[in-house]
Amino acid sequence: MNYLKKLVMAIYCLMFYLSASAQEHPGIMLTKKNIGAVRKGVQTYPLLKASYKKVKADADKALAEPILVPEPKDAGGGATHEQHKKNYSNILNCGIAYQLSADKKYAAYVENILLKYAADYGKWPLHPKRKENHQAGRIFWQSLNDFVWQVYTIQGYDMVYEAISAKNRATINSGLFEPMLKFFTVDCKETFDKIHNHGTWDIAAVGMTGYVLNKPEYVEMAIKGSAKDGKTGYLAQVDQLFSPDGYYTEGPYYQRYALLPFILFAKAIHNFQPELKIFEYRNQLLAKAINTTLQLTYTDGTFFPVNDAVKGKTYETPELVYGVDIAYADIKPAAELLDVAQRQAEVIVSDAGLKVAADLQAGKAKPFSYQSQLIKDGASGTEGGLGILRYGNNDDQQVLLLKAASQGMGHGHFDRLNLLYYDNGVEIFPDYGSARFINIESKKGGDYLPENKTWAKQTIAHNTLVVDQTSNYKANAELAQQSHPEILYFKSDKNLQVVSAIEKNAYPEVQMIRTSALLKVAELAKPLLIDVFQVLAAKPHQYDLPFWYKGHIVDASPKINAFRNELKPLGEKYGYEHIWLNADQPVKEKSGYLSILNNKRFYTVHFATDTAVNLKMLLLGANDPDMSLVESKAFMLSSARSANQVFFNVTETHGRTNPVSETTTGASSKVSDLKILGSSKDQVRVSFKVKGKLYTWQINYQQKENFIKLN
Amino acid sequence: MNYLKKLVMAIYCLMFYLSASAQEHPGIMLTKKNIGAVRKGVQTYPLLKASYKKVKADADKALAEPILVPEPKDAGGGATHEQHKKNYSNILNCGIAYQLSADKKYAAYVENILLKYAADYGKWPLHPKRKENHQAGRIFWQSLNDFVWQVYTIQGYDMVYEAISAKNRATINSGLFEPMLKFFTVDCKETFDKIHNHGTWDIAAVGMTGYVLNKPEYVEMAIKGSAKDGKTGYLAQVDQLFSPDGYYTEGPYYQRYALLPFILFAKAIHNFQPELKIFEYRNQLLAKAINTTLQLTYTDGTFFPVNDAVKGKTYETPELVYGVDIAYADIKPAAELLDVAQRQAEVIVSDAGLKVAADLQAGKAKPFSYQSQLIKDGASGTEGGLGILRYGNNDDQQVLLLKAASQGMGHGHFDRLNLLYYDNGVEIFPDYGSARFINIESKKGGDYLPENKTWAKQTIAHNTLVVDQTSNYKANAELAQQSHPEILYFKSDKNLQVVSAIEKNAYPEVQMIRTSALLKVAELAKPLLIDVFQVLAAKPHQYDLPFWYKGHIVDASPKINAFRNELKPLGEKYGYEHIWLNADQPVKEKSGYLSILNNKRFYTVHFATDTAVNLKMLLLGANDPDMSLVESKAFMLSSARSANQVFFNVTETHGRTNPVSETTTGASSKVSDLKILGSSKDQVRVSFKVKGKLYTWQINYQQKENFIKLN
Repeated sequence: MNYLKKLVMAIYCLMFYLSASAQEHPGIMLTKKNIGAVRKGVQTYPLLKASYKKVKADADKALAEPILVPEPKDAGGGATHEQHKKNYSNILNCGIAYQLSADKKYAAYVENILLKYAADYGKWPLHPKRKENHQAGRIFWQSLNDFVWQVYTIQGYDMVYEAISAKNRATINSGLFEPMLKFFTVDCKETFDKIHNHGTWDIAAVGMTGYVLNKPEYVEMAIKGSAKDGKTGYLAQVDQLFSPDGYYTEGPYYQRYALLPFILFAKAIHNFQPELKIFEYRNQLLAKAINTTLQLTYTDGTFFPVNDAVKGKTYETPELVYGVDIAYADIKPAAELLDVAQRQAEVIVSDAGLKVAADLQAGKAKPFSYQSQLIKDGASGTEGGLGILRYGNNDDQQVLLLKAASQGMGHGHFDRLNLLYYDNGVEIFPDYGSARFINIESKKGGDYLPENKTWAKQTIAHNTLVVDQTSNYKANAELAQQSHPEILYFKSDKNLQVVSAIEKNAYPEVQMIRTSALLKVAELAKPLLIDVFQVLAAKPHQYDLPFWYKGHIVDASPKINAFRNELKPLGEKYGYEHIWLNADQPVKEKSGYLSILNNKRFYTVHFATDTAVNLKMLLLGANDPDMSLVESKAFMLSSARSANQVFFNVTETHGRTNPVSETTTGASSKVSDLKILGSSKDQVRVSFKVKGKLYTWQINYQQKENFIKLN
Repeated sequence: MNYLKKLVMAIYCLMFYLSASAQEHPGIMLTKKNIGAVRKGVQTYPLLKASYKKVKADADKALAEPILVPEPKDAGGGATHEQHKKNYSNILNCGIAYQLSADKKYAAYVENILLKYAADYGKWPLHPKRKENHQAGRIFWQSLNDFVWQVYTIQGYDMVYEAISAKNRATINSGLFEPMLKFFTVDCKETFDKIHNHGTWDIAAVGMTGYVLNKPEYVEMAIKGSAKDGKTGYLAQVDQLFSPDGYYTEGPYYQRYALLPFILFAKAIHNFQPELKIFEYRNQLLAKAINTTLQLTYTDGTFFPVNDAVKGKTYETPELVYGVDIAYADIKPAAELLDVAQRQAEVIVSDAGLKVAADLQAGKAKPFSYQSQLIKDGASGTEGGLGILRYGNNDDQQVLLLKAASQGMGHGHFDRLNLLYYDNGVEIFPDYGSARFINIESKKGGDYLPENKTWAKQTIAHNTLVVDQTSNYKANAELAQQSHPEILYFKSDKNLQVVSAIEKNAYPEVQMIRTSALLKVAELAKPLLIDVFQVLAAKPHQYDLPFWYKGHIVDASPKINAFRNELKPLGEKYGYEHIWLNADQPVKEKSGYLSILNNKRFYTVHFATDTAVNLKMLLLGANDPDMSLVESKAFMLSSARSANQVFFNVTETHGRTNPVSETTTGASSKVSDLKILGSSKDQVRVSFKVKGKLYTWQINYQQKENFIKLN
C-alpha cells in the first residue's frame, strides 16, 4: 500500500469512529424520510408502479401460503434449499409491501417467520450436505448462500423494524442475527477476510446487519476486515478486486454478480455514514464498475461471454437493476442510464427507483453510449485487459473484442488473445461461454458440466492460436494465474481503431502477438476487420488458428471438399477430442477466403500466411455421449512447419439478402490480394486491395507514435 | 365439366361479347377517375405516402441513368437479363410517378424506352441461352420472364398512354406489343393453353395487353383459351389450378407466386368488364385463394415451408401486397386484412392501396384471425389436403400441420403424412424446405442445389414414416402425382382438434394412417400434441419415423449414449446417405421420452410403440462435400421386425427458462405411462397419464360420428 492510499484509509478510519451511530428505520434502499414520496411515486410513475405491482403480488402470494422454515437438509436445488431461498424473497417483498401499504399484515409475516428462524437457528449445525470444496453454511449447503440470505433478510427486517415489538426484536436478534454475525465473522473468518467474491457477500451481510442492529463494531469489521486494520474488508476488496477501470477479473458474467454486494453495502454506508463518501472512494470506483459492466455488453444487452458465462444473460439482470438505479440516483444522474433502465423495464422499489422512474417519465432518457475502449485488468491496471472496438450506432454496430486480460481466477478460460466479432445484432465469431445448462436439473443439476473443463475452457474452443494441440499453460489454472498478456497498443479514432497485445508465457519459448483493428476505408460502407496474428518461436511448432463462426458458408477458396463417409475426432485431448474434423485440405497459394451468410449479411474472411497451411473445417460434438455440447463450427488454419509465422486476415462485412423480396445485393467481396510483405520481431508488413486500390498495413511494435502505418 | 359449370361458362362468354369495349387510360391498378383521390392520398395517409416515396425514388433513379435496351444474350442473373428486369420495374415506376406528379419527364422515359424496344424487338430471335427444358423467350432465356416483363410493362404503358403521341403509340404497338402478342399466343401457344403457372402469366400478359390496346380478340383468348372454347384460358385455370378451398397444389411458397398473375388480370377484368363479376367467379375463388395463402403462414408471417420453399419468406412478399390490397378494396373490406397490410408496411400505389391506407389510418384494423382448418387439395377438393390445428392467440400460438395433400407437381416433396409443429414463435418440428440459396450466385447461381433432389425432397428429410429406407413412390414424381392421401377426419373444437389421414399408395402393400391432435386437458395450461401413426402391411418392414427438431435435448430416456470416436452415414440412398448416425440404442421398455429446450420453453416428446424399436440420433451433413446442407438434427424411432405397428407419441409443451433472471419453472413433464392398448385396421386404442390421471384415446376409423373417443 503506498503512502497516499494509507492516508486515505486512515482518514476513513477516523471518520468511521466519529459517525457510526445514526439510526433510523428503514434506512437502506428505502429510507424513512422518503416513504411518502415513494408511496406517491407508485401511483404516478408507470415503471415504479409496475415494479411495485410485482413486489406486492409476490408479497400477497407469500401471505397466502403457510410459513415454512424447514430444517436444512437438501443440497442446491433441493426442497429445503429452495424454501429458504423463497423465504428471503418473501421477507424482502413483505417488508417493501409493508412500507408502501402500511398494512401490518405484511410486517406480521416478517415478524413471524423471523421468530421461527430465531427459534430454530441455534439448533442447526453445519449443513449436512456441504458443497464440495466450499465452506458449509447452516441454512444452505455453502456459506455463500447464507450470506446472500442475510443480505436480503436484513433489508426486510429493517423495513418492518418499527412494527415489531421490542421484545420480539430482542428475541430475533439474540436467536438469529447475533449468532449469525458470530457465524459469519468467526466460523467463516477465512471467507470474511478473503479478497474474493464470497467474502464480499459475507462482509455486506455483516456490515448491513451491523448498521440495522446498531452494532458499529461489526460495521467496522466489515469495512476494515476482522482485524480492523484495513488489510482485508470492504475497502480492501474495492481496492483489489477491481481494476482502476472498474473491471472484475473473472469477466463480465461474474462481474455483474460480484458487483451486487458491493453496491448494496455501499448504499448502506452512503445512507448511514454519508461522510465516508463511499461512492467517491478510489476515484468513483463503484460508478466506474457499474458503467464498465454495461460497456461489457453488445448492443442487444448481452454480456460478452468470455470465461465461464451463461450465454443470453443481459444487463436486464436484477443485479444491474440495482446498479443502474443506484448509479443514477446516488452517484451521477447520467441520462443514458435511463435508456438502460427502460430496457430493464423494472426499477427497485426504493428511493433510487423513484428517481429513475420519475426522470424516465419526464422524458430525460438518452441512448446508452457504447464506447470503444481499453478496459484494463488487475488491481493496478497493469495485467492486460479487454480491447473493445466499436463502429456504428446501437441499431447496427460492429464490435471487435480482443481478450488480453489475466486468467480471471477459477472461472477463467485458457483463451489468451481470443477475438470476438459481432455485427448486425448477432455474433459472427462467437465465444462458446461455459458448458452449462443453468437451472436445468437434468443437466448435472444445472451446474457446470464436465465439458466445461474438457471443452469450454480449452484454448481450441476459442478464436485464438493453439500451439502443438495443447492449451495455454497446458490448461494449468494456477500457472496461468501467475502471468498475463501485455497490451502493446490501443487507439480508437473513428476510422482506425486498433488493439494490439502480446502473450509470452502461455507456451514455452513462444511469443504470440495479435493486432486487430476496425479500419474504415473510403471504398466501403463498413469498416474492415484487420487481424494480424504473429508467432515468434525458437523452433517449429504446429499452429492452429480456429475461427468459430455463426452462419452458413456460401463460398470458399480453396473450394471445400468435406469428408463424405466418415468423421473422426481432430485429436485426443485439450478439447481436440470433442471436434469432428469435417474437411482438411491444403491452401495452395497460402491465401484464400470464406464467405459466410449470417442474419442476411455476408462476411468474407480473406486470409494469407507466410508458410503453407491447411484449411480445416471443424464441427463440435465428438466424445460427447450425453450430447451436452451445443452446435458449433469453425474453420481453422493449421500448419506444422514453421517457427515464426504470420496469420493475416481481413474480414469484409458486406451486402445483404432479403428472403421476403428475394433480392441479394453486394454479395461479392471487394477485398483481394492479401500479401505478407515481411515480418520480424519489430515489425509486420502486409498489404491488400479494396476495389483494386492497394493498401499497405505496417505494424511497428517498437514505435508507439507510429504503431500502425497505413499507406 | 358438369352442366352447371357449362352454363356459367356460357353466360360469361355471352357477357363478354357485349361489353369488351370500355376504354380509358389508366385503367388497371390506377384508374383515371381515381387519380385525384390518390394524389391527395399520398399527402394524407402515411402508408401510401411512404409507398409512393419509394416508387418515386426508384423512378428518379431510373431517370438519372441512361436508357439501356441491350440485345438479349445472358442467362438468368447475367447482365442483359438483369437490365431487362430492371427496365420493366423502371417503366412501371415511371408510369406511376407520371400519374401522381403529372410531370411529363416520367412519361417521356417510358415513351423513349418503349420506342427503343419497338425498334429492336423485331430483330431479336429466340434467346440464344434457352433455359434447359423451358420454352425460350425473346428478351429472356425463358418465355416465362417475357410474360412477366409484359405484365408490368403494359401497366406502365397504360399509365402514360395519353402522354404519348398517337404516332409513337402506333410505332410502339406495331413494333413491340403486337409482335409480342403474336409471340405469346402463337409461338408460345402450348404454354398459353397449358393449365400451369407459366400459362397464367402468358394469359395475364396477353389479356391485360388486349384491354390496354383495345384488342378484344386477345382478351377473349386470354379468358377462354386460344380456341375460345373455355377448355383452356383464364377461367379454366381458375377452375383447375385451385382447390375449392383456394389451395394451389404446389404449396404455400409457390401459391403466393402463382397467385399474382391471377390477381392482376382479375383486377383488369374487374375494371374493364365489371359485368363479368370476376371476383365472384367460382364462389369467390380468388378471395379464398388470397385468404388461404395468408392462412398458410405461422403467426410470424412465414409460409409453411412444405415442398420446394425458400424458408423465411413471409406474407410481406410483394405478391401478397397486391393480394391483400385488392382483396380488401375490390372484394371484401375485412378489417383483419388491414392487420396484414400494416405488417407489410407497404401498399400498392393504386386505387386499392389508397383505400387500405385510408382505412388503416382511420384505425379500422383488427388482428388477423388464424383459423384451424382443413384446406383441401385438388380441383374438386378430393385430393387430400393440409390439416392445420391452431391453439392460442397470435402472440404465442401452437400450430400442428399435417400434410396429406397430393404430390404438388414438380415442386412436390415425397412427404406423405408429414407433421410440422410450431410454438412460441418458432419451429419445433420443422420442415427443411428446399435445398437452395436463392440469389446466392456462388451456390449454383441461386438455383435449386443437387441436394434438393438427393435430400430435401426425400421422405427421410420429413417428419413422417419411411418404409425400408426408401422414399414414398421410390421418389418417382410421376407415379406420386397419380395418387394422393385421403383425409379421414377433421375436427376443430377448441379443446380437441384432430386431423386424420390415410396414405395407401406410397409403398406397395403398406397402409399408413396418421391421426394427430391438439388436446387441451384440464391438468395442463397448454394442449398436448397427440400423434398416432399406424402402419398396416402384409409383411414385416423396416419402419423409420424421424422427428427433425430444433433446440437442444436436455433429458432423455433411454439415456442417450452418442458415438464418441466415429460417425458413419445412416445409409446409401434416398437421403439416408446425407445423415450422420450419431447414436443408436435399443428402447428396452418400448417407450421413452426426450426433453428439448427450444427458445426458453420445454418440449417433452413421450413415445411408445408396440414392437421393439431403436432410438437413433441423426445429424445432417454426410456426403455433402460442398457443405450445402443446413444444420439439422433429428431423433428417430426405428424398427425392423413388424408388419403392423403403431407409433404413439405425446408432446407436452411446458415450463420456461429465463436466462436473464436465471430461473427455470415447469421443467419436468407431467405426462407419463404411454401405453398401446390395442390396434386393428378399424381402431387404435392408447392411453397415457397426466399428473397421474389416466386418459384413454380411442380412434375409430370407421365411425365418423365417434372418430375419437376420449375417456
